[in-house]
Amino acid sequence: MSRFSLRSDFSRTPNPLAEALAGLRAQGLPPLDLTVSNPTRVGLPAPDAGALHPPGAFDYAPEALGLPSAREAVAGYLRSRGTAVSPEHLVLSASTSESYGWLFKLLCEPGDDVLVPAPCYPLFEHLARLEAVQTRSYRLPLAHGFGLDAGEVEAALGPRTRAVLIINPGNPTGHFLHEGELAALADVCARHRLALISDEVFADYAWAPAPGRVMTVAGRALPMPTFSLSGLSKVAGLPGLKLGWMHVGGPDAARDEALARLEWVADTYLSVATPVQLALPRLLAHAPVFQQALLERVRANREHLARARPPGATWDVLPAHGGWSAVLRIPREPGEEAMCLALLEAGVLVQPGYFYDFGGGAFLVLSLLTPPEDFIAALAPLTRVLGAAG
Amino acid sequence: MSRFSLRSDFSRTPNPLAEALAGLRAQGLPPLDLTVSNPTRVGLPAPDAGALHPPGAFDYAPEALGLPSAREAVAGYLRSRGTAVSPEHLVLSASTSESYGWLFKLLCEPGDDVLVPAPCYPLFEHLARLEAVQTRSYRLPLAHGFGLDAGEVEAALGPRTRAVLIINPGNPTGHFLHEGELAALADVCARHRLALISDEVFADYAWAPAPGRVMTVAGRALPMPTFSLSGLSKVAGLPGLKLGWMHVGGPDAARDEALARLEWVADTYLSVATPVQLALPRLLAHAPVFQQALLERVRANREHLARARPPGATWDVLPAHGGWSAVLRIPREPGEEAMCLALLEAGVLVQPGYFYDFGGGAFLVLSLLTPPEDFIAALAPLTRVLGAAG
Ligand SMILES: Cc1ncc(COP(=O)(O)O)c(C=O)c1O
Ligand SMILES: Cc1ncc(COP(=O)(O)O)c(C=O)c1O
Repeated sequence: MSRFSLRSDFSRTPNPLAEALAGLRAQGLPPLDLTVSNPTRVGLPAPDAGALHPPGAFDYAPEALGLPSAREAVAGYLRSRGTAVSPEHLVLSASTSESYGWLFKLLCEPGDDVLVPAPCYPLFEHLARLEAVQTRSYRLPLAHGFGLDAGEVEAALGPRTRAVLIINPGNPTGHFLHEGELAALADVCARHRLALISDEVFADYAWAPAPGRVMTVAGRALPMPTFSLSGLSKVAGLPGLKLGWMHVGGPDAARDEALARLEWVADTYLSVATPVQLALPRLLAHAPVFQQALLERVRANREHLARARPPGATWDVLPAHGGWSAVLRIPREPGEEAMCLALLEAGVLVQPGYFYDFGGGAFLVLSLLTPPEDFIAALAPLTRVLGAAG
Repeated sequence: MSRFSLRSDFSRTPNPLAEALAGLRAQGLPPLDLTVSNPTRVGLPAPDAGALHPPGAFDYAPEALGLPSAREAVAGYLRSRGTAVSPEHLVLSASTSESYGWLFKLLCEPGDDVLVPAPCYPLFEHLARLEAVQTRSYRLPLAHGFGLDAGEVEAALGPRTRAVLIINPGNPTGHFLHEGELAALADVCARHRLALISDEVFADYAWAPAPGRVMTVAGRALPMPTFSLSGLSKVAGLPGLKLGWMHVGGPDAARDEALARLEWVADTYLSVATPVQLALPRLLAHAPVFQQALLERVRANREHLARARPPGATWDVLPAHGGWSAVLRIPREPGEEAMCLALLEAGVLVQPGYFYDFGGGAFLVLSLLTPPEDFIAALAPLTRVLGAAG
């Protein structure tokens, strides 16, 4: 066998849940899928087809940080959300995932590490590992509704930690960062010379007004370099178009140095397709239409779920304030995986908490994007199987 | 100042040539540009606009290695060039540059190295460095017309060398790999357990039939893992669309392991925009139209250049067989940079050989993509300034 790298040596063993699911599908018995995350496949509105047909789509004007017109479109979008930023401080990439890769290259030597929250969507371990960077987890305490605890961040620091990553609002926890949490975190970052990477891909998805929440770290006067990430995937429900962005902030000198280095990195790949950059103003104009339809979907599904819970049930829907998911706390016995397998047998697919590194109990995660017919149809088997446990 | 990584610490000092050029442009005196490399800006044919308007462009069907229809389109294109490959052995990415990044992650731990040819287009040092990988150069001997010398490759190997990179045909040397050179190289790779990365982005640009040349390593029975790279940038003159591909070959077990790992890597980024993948059959159908127009341009410019050389001149147009460039060998005095500055003063912009790590003499590189009016207009000042040297 030839020599391949350790950093590309991912485990490819399917878990029991994936195997059971593949078995059902092979038998022509697909379950009701409460794990859907693809916003283009759940009956929500898409932009009109003409948006992707901009004049000059084949002309190439390489601009490492993104075409000025596209960066201005992102600045305009942020402005419409109440955040004033300079387009000069924006960097386009092909996705938030690519933005992360660039930031790990910018901030870390091989062997350095970044702090990531737990629980959290499992994206960072692979992204970091491919850059020869490690991740260390800090706990979001359930007792604080999975809010950020700066003490947990500080306790998780190591000698080679270079950055703290936050997800605001959390995925799948739906907790928004609050002003007091940010102030405490900024203090930790400044004292330990850490950069802050703030993932704000779900920032537009508050279910109700949330006073005291931090909408974005972009445009704030903070004492450490800040990188605030988002993109078309979640903002406009268009993951197939491959356009993400980050805002670079913090003290002027560090910000400018970060931007100059990111310009080199971006210039090495030049990864955003021109037609998509040219279409960006029209795609962002579609975002509010998509977001409103999605929020209606999510609120309605969440209400159905709350109403389906029998009084005195041994399971709970955890409180949250935004995002695309619901988290259930379930009895510790028979365990997350056994519960998921029992639900699958009853025709309902959900995700176990361990997929998101929950801990401190047993949890299930349900997608609130699920088309209402499927979501409602799943509630009877769900409550029946859950009710039998504990 | 905050802490950023060494691997992102690129020198940003402009060279004297770039400064002189900026000065001329600021005075409103742009030179005749014989360095143009953007194929969308030189009057060559573009696809018709409708090609980018495929049905289903907003629908997202994530496929890490690329949509089956797009991989089949690449296989069909290779078939039309006489190369039979399975679409299953093709990996799509957002560009050849991204393919390189993925291969360095696949093949190298931090600190490992890859061998790159010299002279060569300066792309790999940054790409490697951002992956915490080193490059080591092997010389393409001028005495062999910049052909590959397996002895030079073997002499350049270090204890942590993991792969050999070849550019076929060379950029800017325009030398094609020959069967005998490949056989000798395969032997070196097999004995030292090295992978072969073959950059074939200019493979379609032979100026005349070239017997004995290796068109591609894809689909060949070779004893080491092979990766053959190309993409829309050069094949169809569409760098703005961000679609590259690689064919993975070599012994079955190594090939399958490489594909499985690349699938994970690709899945981490999912970087090719869906509309471009859907448009790929039409974009590749345009490739022969673009290629023919480009070849006519390149052949005509090369003839003008040959005819402009006075008999007995102290400079030469080096022999070559394909590609988009011409290489001139010039007298060692006054040196490449001084010559480029003198040419710039005379209103002609060309590239110095050191930009490509030539060596063993003094060289200039001219783009044969240049629109004929500019190219012809540049010949009088070019021959005058060159004639005054040596
Ligand atoms: C919190 C979070 N950030 C980033 C991403 C990835 O987004 P992108 O498609 O822009 O790479 C996801 C994907 O689900 C996510 O949940
Ligand atoms: C030899 C060679 N390979 C690869 C590339 C980069 O191609 P892409 O645009 O697909 O990243 C270039 C760019 O000029 C090149 O000269």
